[in-house]
Amino acid sequence: MRVEYINPFVDATINVMSTMTGHTPIRGKLGLTTNESPSFDISAVIGIAGDVHGSVVISFPESCALKVVSSFIGENKTVVDDEVMDAVGEFVNMIAGGAKKTLTGNGMRFKIAIPNVIVGKDHKISRPKSIPCILVPFKIEDIGTFTVEVSIKEVA
Amino acid sequence: MRVEYINPFVDATINVMSTMTGHTPIRGKLGLTTNESPSFDISAVIGIAGDVHGSVVISFPESCALKVVSSFIGENKTVVDDEVMDAVGEFVNMIAGGAKKTLTGNGMRFKIAIPNVIVGKDHKISRPKSIPCILVPFKIEDIGTFTVEVSIKEVA
Repeated sequence: MRVEYINPFVDATINVMSTMTGHTPIRGKLGLTTNESPSFDISAVIGIAGDVHGSVVISFPESCALKVVSSFIGENKTVVDDEVMDAVGEFVNMIAGGAKKTLTGNGMRFKIAIPNVIVGKDHKISRPKSIPCILVPFKIEDIGTFTVEVSIKEVA
Repeated sequence: MRVEYINPFVDATINVMSTMTGHTPIRGKLGLTTNESPSFDISAVIGIAGDVHGSVVISFPESCALKVVSSFIGENKTVVDDEVMDAVGEFVNMIAGGAKKTLTGNGMRFKIAIPNVIVGKDHKISRPKSIPCILVPFKIEDIGTFTVEVSIKEVA
């Protein structure tokens, strides 16, 4: 997967989370995902399709999701309810939308599907082994960590 | 959501599962999904984007997934490993591909993203409340039940 595909998603993640929650995430070391994927409590996935096919997944431990969503909606959330799930789906939607804007400016054309949100203690998310996936860890000071996974396959 | 969007996904599910596993699923009663979504052990989600945006989710209890995948690959699987996850991702890919073929013939244009597979005991999957979602339950005699959820939104 070309590195120029990844940076727009990283930048969009930082922009969206900073603007929407007031918390600026710091990017960790990028890596190819392996079978030993991390496990999470709440995730959102969104597909992209066009000149390239792929998906973007954002995943949070419950405590981190509750804190960022509380900041996003301006209300203290203590349990993962519909409002928290919708907010996490909206995060991935805005991140994919932000990256699309940059990549479209670079001449790439694709459209974004709708988000699905997954809730379940310690779930794992995978994708076909044939499709490269970059995992980007983020840390928000005093709040916690989350990850963004970007899988992109050029259409033959 | 128009009913003519749904039937191609139902037909493709029956065709794919019958052809690939030798087990013919029987469709149950279609319903709009509610907040009381069923919970599952293994699911695969794939996005669609074009004239319409949406997603397709197939979800199995573990015992049903192991049985249909065992039939699919011709090997007795007793645990959910990478091979089982890949197979479930391939099911949703083939179902979306089959429905695309029918809908493209009807003049609708969209592309398919890549599948993500979720594993986790009793996880739940949701989508934005603003997007209608039809849940289709299926039963395979002596094997178990599974569901297919189709969310489609016409692009404004």
